[in-house]
Parts: sequence; structure tokens; C-alpha cells
Amino acid sequence: MKIIESIFSGEKVSVCFDANFNNVNNFHSSDKILVLTDQNIFTLHSQKFTNFQVIKVDGSEKNKTQSTVDNIISQMLQLDIDKTWLLVGVGGGVITDMAGYVASIYKRGIKLGLAPTSILGMTDAAIGGKNGVNVGMYKNMVGTTYRPTFILYDFTFLDTLPTAEWINGFAEIIKHACIKDEAMFNELENRDINFYINNRTEATAMIKKNVALKTAVVLADEFEKADRFQLNFGHTFGHAIENLYNIPHGHAVSIGMLMAAKVSAEINNFDSVSVERLKELLQQYKLTVSQEINKEEVLALLTKDKKRAGDAINFVLLNSIGNATVKQLSFKTIQSLLDQTL
Amino acid sequence: MKIIESIFSGEKVSVCFDANFNNVNNFHSSDKILVLTDQNIFTLHSQKFTNFQVIKVDGSEKNKTQSTVDNIISQMLQLDIDKTWLLVGVGGGVITDMAGYVASIYKRGIKLGLAPTSILGMTDAAIGGKNGVNVGMYKNMVGTTYRPTFILYDFTFLDTLPTAEWINGFAEIIKHACIKDEAMFNELENRDINFYINNRTEATAMIKKNVALKTAVVLADEFEKADRFQLNFGHTFGHAIENLYNIPHGHAVSIGMLMAAKVSAEINNFDSVSVERLKELLQQYKLTVSQEINKEEVLALLTKDKKRAGDAINFVLLNSIGNATVKQLSFKTIQSLLDQTL
Repeated sequence: MKIIESIFSGEKVSVCFDANFNNVNNFHSSDKILVLTDQNIFTLHSQKFTNFQVIKVDGSEKNKTQSTVDNIISQMLQLDIDKTWLLVGVGGGVITDMAGYVASIYKRGIKLGLAPTSILGMTDAAIGGKNGVNVGMYKNMVGTTYRPTFILYDFTFLDTLPTAEWINGFAEIIKHACIKDEAMFNELENRDINFYINNRTEATAMIKKNVALKTAVVLADEFEKADRFQLNFGHTFGHAIENLYNIPHGHAVSIGMLMAAKVSAEINNFDSVSVERLKELLQQYKLTVSQEINKEEVLALLTKDKKRAGDAINFVLLNSIGNATVKQLSFKTIQSLLDQTL
Repeated sequence: MKIIESIFSGEKVSVCFDANFNNVNNFHSSDKILVLTDQNIFTLHSQKFTNFQVIKVDGSEKNKTQSTVDNIISQMLQLDIDKTWLLVGVGGGVITDMAGYVASIYKRGIKLGLAPTSILGMTDAAIGGKNGVNVGMYKNMVGTTYRPTFILYDFTFLDTLPTAEWINGFAEIIKHACIKDEAMFNELENRDINFYINNRTEATAMIKKNVALKTAVVLADEFEKADRFQLNFGHTFGHAIENLYNIPHGHAVSIGMLMAAKVSAEINNFDSVSVERLKELLQQYKLTVSQEINKEEVLALLTKDKKRAGDAINFVLLNSIGNATVKQLSFKTIQSLLDQTL
């Protein structure tokens, strides 16, 4: 196990690569560790959890709600969990988000650890402290920002990760390349999804590179005044589409990135050759690049977006591959751009 | 209006005495102010709220639940409240607690102001940033610590405060005197509840003194490592009794303080004359001093208390009037003390 320590707002977060799940014992007494995980992960990896109390929930996006959180909290009360316990979220982004939220509100906050098991969780959701649950169609409308004590990477969880989840996760990796790392974009172009699924060394190297990239962005701008906001690239349209059409997160972000790239070509001098390169890259990673959408429905959902500020919305555009910018666009402008780009 | 500024963890909180509710405009643009208040307050003081969006809820303790919070959040989404808005909680402790919790989790946090309307809210609940909702019988099991930008004291809200709420609020004032201020205890002994109800100048002076006392305790120990914990005096038994027997908070704390005083006499050299003085003082303020309790039920609830640490509970005891201490008592010790003191 290799531990890299970062300080966020004065609090230490230990990132543990190449770990074994049992290494959670390095951070807390094992008789006071509660694991929150998903049914499938528990079934596939039950031998990892024999020493701990476990709460299992359905870890699908539709279940990422306050009512699941209520259920988790009532189980924690029944288990007599007090403030001396550690809660470890083990799963994809849905589980790590709910674990972070629960840890932040249970008895006004208990110690948190995260062990992401999916590409999306490992490269994105578990990093940065943001958590949340959905309210009806609105994504992450309720949540907090709460730091884990550690993020533990046990790469053997990838042994059972379904192909669909590899694909989902690479959408965030491509997003990171688009906004921050042209060299990584080139590297991804030279490979495809099957290469990474079948080559564990290269996959974990790519994951570590993305952890470093996201951590650096978050550390440089914890309160999302500038650079961190760029991590929302593809997510403004993406979140709306994900909820309206019940599309997996990665595919929705893929469609959202391509829409944002087209908008960037229209009003930000992003070149159209690069739009095509992005489209081809997304297809190489088996991500969806088009979807019939109802513009009025999408616009109506955008007005509820957390990124909204009055009559406008902060929108992430590309200058070139590896270089992004944030512009405030009015809903009117977005409407006319949707008419042109779709 | 007189403004006193304090800095909590680097964030400024403005305490505004002798204010008019409309002074909230000093802190935020009035077209982006959302008021959360209680039905009764709204009916009695509707003219104060004409310039603002308002959400009204039942502000009774039984309604301080996640389901009320869910309802508030869904109304906020319908009203298109975004992160540029200010949420102002106007009411007693139940309302200011729910306002703080909602502001902390809505879209991962929006700006918060508090305008407490009861003695309990003004002297206790609105100060210090703690909030929460109850889960079944367990008080404040879910919540966060979240600072308001301002706490506004419009004393005309006291014009309509029911006598029962004056009585409830004086339990916390007596608590402050017990743990920190012998002179205030003496002053309270020379007066009674009717004196304060009928003498607004003296009542507001007493409120201001208690705001200063609680603010000083919180500032000196924001993370509740030592002194701040003393504010739980009377609340360990109090919370259990409040929920089991559906007794108003102030009366439950009154019973809890007297129980804790008897325990202090038993194991902490607190003198029995002072126990009698406290009992008489509570009666002067029309607070309940005895209640038939089922010891097993009370002990069972104590095991869920946030103050629990493993097999013991941190318990606030008095050394003398105006001077408190914290001791860790095992559940076994508490059980045998309950047998002796009840």
C-alpha cells in the first residue's frame, strides 16, 4: 500500500493506492467500523467484510434518495452506532455519495472513509468531499461537503466490475483530458475501452493519473471559485438528460460533453476538427454520442441546476483540447444554441 | 439596532439586538430572501413578512423531523430558490434548528440568517451553529453545525409569546446560571417568571446577558472539547424524559437539572443546600421539578444519546452554583445513582 497525504482546509486526507480492504484497520479500531455497501458488491466480495458490521443497500442511481438515507440512519441507530465509530462507504459513486452525506449528518458528523469500487468512483466521485442525494428529477439537490479521513483503492474490486461500468467511468476520464490534459487525450485516442479492461497495469496507472489530476484541481480551488468549476464540463446538459431519459451517468455526460463542445465551436472559437476528435474518442470508449431530446424539457430542468445564478447559468466551454473556460450564458442564449447545435 | 460581530472558525456572525425584522434587508437583497416560519408566528406577525417569500410549517417539536425537512426542500425547489438566496428562520428553536439544517444541505449550502422569536430560541437554540431534527424518539440525531450570517433580535416578537414559552425559555437561562454565573443565579432568585413577563426592559437585558454568556462559551470551545460541553447540563436525562413522556423541553430540562444536581451531591461534593435552592428557583419560574419515570426506559434511551462514548456517557455535574464539571459515568453507575436519587 502506498499512502499519499493531502491537506484540504487544514484536514488531512490519506489516499491509499494498491491497498487491501483490510487496511481500513490502519485508520480505526476494527470493532468500531461500519461498512455501507451495495448488495452486489457485498455478494461478490463478502470475504472482505467478515470483520465488520455491514449495512447493504441497493446502490443504483434511482435509489440515491433521502428515503434510502433515512433507512440507513435508522439501521445505524438500531446498531447503536455512536460518534466513536468510523463509517466506510464501499461502492460506486452512489454509495460513496450517500456514505459521505450520512456521515456528515449522523449525530452531526462521524468519521468517514471511502473505498470506491468503480472507475467513476475511483477517479471522480470519491475525491473532493462533495456528496448528495437526488430529489425527484433533480440531481444532488441535497448534500454537504464533507472530507473523508482516507480514500482506499483496493483494485481487486475491479475484477468484478461490469463492462458497462468501465464505460461509464471513462466518460469522467475523457472529461478530465478535455479540460486539463491534452497529452492524456492523445494517449486515450491511441487506445480503447477493451485495452484498459484487459490491461490492469495500464488501467490502474490511468486511474492514479486521474486521481492526481482531480485532487490537484480541488486543492487549488476548494471553494469552487474558478478552476474547480471546470469539472462540471458536460454535466450541465448531462445531468438534465440523465434524469429526463434515465440514461447512465457516463453516457449522459458523454452526450453533454459533445453538446458543450458544439456550443464551444459556436461561440468560443473551439475548432470543429476537435469536435469531431472528441466524438470519435467517445465512440472508441463505447459512449453514447447522440440522443433525441425535448429542448423545452431540458431547458426547464436547467433552471433548477445548482450552477444557476439568476437568469443565467455558468457553463463550461473548451478553448482547445486540454483547456477550458467558464462563461455565464443566459437561458435565452442556451435556447438559441440548442436550436443551432441539435 | 446594535450589531455585535463575532468570528467563529473564521466566519463572521453578526448579532443584531433591538432590531426590526425588516433589517434583514441590511444583509441581503430583499427579492432573494426566503423566510421559513411557523404558522402561528406568521398569523400573529404577518405584516412583518409582506416583502418576502414565505414557507410556513407547524413549528411544534413533534414536527421537527426529516419529513418536514423534505417538505420544505420540495417547496424551495418549486419556488426556484438557488444558491444566490438567503434563508431566514423565524421562530422558536424548532424552526431555527430546521432552518439551519435545511440551509446547510440545500444545494450543498445556502446563506442562513436566524430571527429567534422565543426566549429559548433567543438565549440558546439560535446561538452556536448546531442544528438538527429528531429521528423517532431520539432528539437531534441528524443535523449539522452551520453558521448563520446574522442572528437578528426583534423583541416585538415577545409581545405574542405565550406564558408557557416564557417558562420553557427560563429553563435554559437557569441552566446558564448554574454552570457559569452565580451572580445571575442570585438575581434570578430575587425575581420570578411574572416579573420578566411584565418588565420588557429587564427581560431583554436578561436575554442579552445570556446571549453573551452562551456566545463566549461557544467561541472559547467551538469543537466541544471542554467547556462547551457543560451546556448539556440537565439535557442528558432531560432529552430522554422529554421524548418518553412528551414533556415540553424546558420542563424536561428542569427535571434533568434537578436530577443532575442530586447526582452531583451524591458523587461530586455539591452541597445539598444548593440542591434545595435550585429546586426552589425552578419552582419560582413555574418549571416542573418531579416526574414519575421508568428507569429502564430512561436508561435504554440514554444508550442512544449523542454524548455516549462506548459503555459510558459524558455527564455534566455541578461543583457549586455557577461552576460545573464533566465526568464520564458508566451506564452501571448511572443506574445505581438513579436508584438512590429518585
